[in-house]
Amino acid sequence: MPSFAVTPGGTPAAESGHSVGVVEARRARFDAPLELACGQSLPAYELAYETYGTLDQARSNAVLVCHALNASHHVAGCYADNPEDIGWWDNMVGPGKPLDTNRYFVIGVNNLGSCFGSTGPTSINPATGRSWGADFPLVTVEDWVDAQARLADMLGIRQFAAVMGGSLGGMQALAWAIRYPDRIRHALVIAAAPNLSAQNIAFNEVARQAIMTDPDFHDGRFETFDTKPRRGLRVARMIGHITYLSDEQMEEKFGRALREGLRFSFAPEFQIESYLRHQGEKFADYYDANTYLRITKALDYFDPAIATGGDLARALAPATCKFLVVAFTTDWRFAPARSRQIVKALVDNRHDVSYAEVIASHGHDAFLLDDPRYLAVVRAYFERIAAEGSATTAKAAP
Amino acid sequence: MPSFAVTPGGTPAAESGHSVGVVEARRARFDAPLELACGQSLPAYELAYETYGTLDQARSNAVLVCHALNASHHVAGCYADNPEDIGWWDNMVGPGKPLDTNRYFVIGVNNLGSCFGSTGPTSINPATGRSWGADFPLVTVEDWVDAQARLADMLGIRQFAAVMGGSLGGMQALAWAIRYPDRIRHALVIAAAPNLSAQNIAFNEVARQAIMTDPDFHDGRFETFDTKPRRGLRVARMIGHITYLSDEQMEEKFGRALREGLRFSFAPEFQIESYLRHQGEKFADYYDANTYLRITKALDYFDPAIATGGDLARALAPATCKFLVVAFTTDWRFAPARSRQIVKALVDNRHDVSYAEVIASHGHDAFLLDDPRYLAVVRAYFERIAAEGSATTAKAAP
Repeated sequence: MPSFAVTPGGTPAAESGHSVGVVEARRARFDAPLELACGQSLPAYELAYETYGTLDQARSNAVLVCHALNASHHVAGCYADNPEDIGWWDNMVGPGKPLDTNRYFVIGVNNLGSCFGSTGPTSINPATGRSWGADFPLVTVEDWVDAQARLADMLGIRQFAAVMGGSLGGMQALAWAIRYPDRIRHALVIAAAPNLSAQNIAFNEVARQAIMTDPDFHDGRFETFDTKPRRGLRVARMIGHITYLSDEQMEEKFGRALREGLRFSFAPEFQIESYLRHQGEKFADYYDANTYLRITKALDYFDPAIATGGDLARALAPATCKFLVVAFTTDWRFAPARSRQIVKALVDNRHDVSYAEVIASHGHDAFLLDDPRYLAVVRAYFERIAAEGSATTAKAAP
Repeated sequence: MPSFAVTPGGTPAAESGHSVGVVEARRARFDAPLELACGQSLPAYELAYETYGTLDQARSNAVLVCHALNASHHVAGCYADNPEDIGWWDNMVGPGKPLDTNRYFVIGVNNLGSCFGSTGPTSINPATGRSWGADFPLVTVEDWVDAQARLADMLGIRQFAAVMGGSLGGMQALAWAIRYPDRIRHALVIAAAPNLSAQNIAFNEVARQAIMTDPDFHDGRFETFDTKPRRGLRVARMIGHITYLSDEQMEEKFGRALREGLRFSFAPEFQIESYLRHQGEKFADYYDANTYLRITKALDYFDPAIATGGDLARALAPATCKFLVVAFTTDWRFAPARSRQIVKALVDNRHDVSYAEVIASHGHDAFLLDDPRYLAVVRAYFERIAAEGSATTAKAAP
């Protein structure tokens, strides 16, 4: 593959595009209270965010990228003081990339309750002067979307060209379409589901139990004890990882390969064991346990059809945007059948929906990876949005 | 369903058969050392076992039932002092049941290293006068089979009519066929696999990590500290349970049903959460952590084809018995594709094999449940064994 010099705003890039280069995280502060689904209210909060590309004069080319479980607002590019810290969707977002920052103004935002810059359990609770910790309220996908809408207000964006996300991010795109139908022209719902299955909830609950029964958890007040529930976080992450990869992919990548022969001990013998332990260790280093608990709960709670007696079509009826739904054949966390439920509900409403079921071996993680067919689908969809951009704008301005 | 009086050795029972009634567990002691695959040797050991039915004069009607992860020698019937304690395969084994104790002499045996009566980590180590605990060696499926062969010697059984098991029990039946070809006429390999996949090993490893990182584990010496790693055992069992049930079955049984509405707390809200916590609690009450670690390792290690460079057909070449292989469509722990690998390897050897892929919604657990088609397949197979019994015996006695 040829390499490219970074030329921000430069000439059309080659097929694979190039990086947005050095980016800066910002923080927006909101002083109006936010009413949460749980009944509590956050008196004030901050959202960490990044932007790439330029907002056009009509303010019509903004795309909001929503993140999944353990990601953040750092979607693309890298930081000046840490060039290794590449955004989690850098293969998707950049000049000449499928979500082309030469055309679109892209916003990455860290969800409320996270531990990467937005207000969450690791932030200072103004009422006590100490970290929120276990006192941080349980937040929902809808709460996130409401907070994101205020960020859009602050940035002067009345309507997004698109809201986009994979996995839990796709659920946020769905919630946007239902909750703010006039503020979003397109929703890209990738590797998502209309709600969690019993099995999905079960995996989340085991992960939570691993964390909550770790003696270092101290009912979520571990910071006071100058510790963190590392054991629980490790196990939680290991469980998660199994569900992100497909059986096939794990077999291909690790199979029954050993590190150095059978040793008849409980030290890691199979390579898959070392891999999982390593992933668990890394996660325990950087992730906050109270955040993990809350994000898994937000996943469990997400169920737009609960308001319509389980009727997903009725739940999606208020949406007016167009949809791209993408699923991956070997994703067993949110299998294609779950995406098809979304598509069916949209079709029942005669909403405009494109559906791609991508043959990919990487399971749920495929939404983050460099699958040429997948990236081509997203690229084509954004080209379509750009092509219809002026028409839609004309329609929106009577 | 009509009820039946227990009439041991009585008239042919109705389709569903009846219970073997009150049974007694026995214990066999072996004083010759047993060489283990790990290189250690057990100087002496005991095996807990039960028998049902009567050994015929030719000693040709014995069937060995091998157990899976957390079961025991208590296969059928109940105990006089505990009528609630019904054997784990009571629907399969009894007068008039698929494995008919009017015809067959059935033996249930507890595996070496278990915590239900056979010598294992909870037994006294004669060298120290204390429980073996963490010092108990790692045992393999082949070690179990070797120990079972000695039990057969003690009971005067030169050749089993069949060795039978589900899941890990099916792996023992496979090992019997390879290791003692002249001592087994039939192998019933149900819901098993020729080895564990990377994903299977991954789930085992997470369960082990949950146990081993529980501060109450104390490197396996928890008894000395008068405690046990309950948290780890709970999480391990919860993980296990997810893999035993099919996604479909979990959805049907629990779905997103709540206990009493959303409460925005970390108390169990969804019914699947309560169910898993309850299963975890029960398991932590009765199961030994060192045993769990060893049984999952025995599963990980099982791989008869390792001796033949990965060629399963060559590994199965020494077998001379006939096979029944059964898989269940929604079993994702040991999916039908894994059973088909066994069947293919047997066919490659021109071994006599019958294969049933049962359409069943219950996932891996289906092998323990009352599926009429499944039970009919096993019944028919045992009728075939009975029909050919004398012929085979004639052939065996030149």
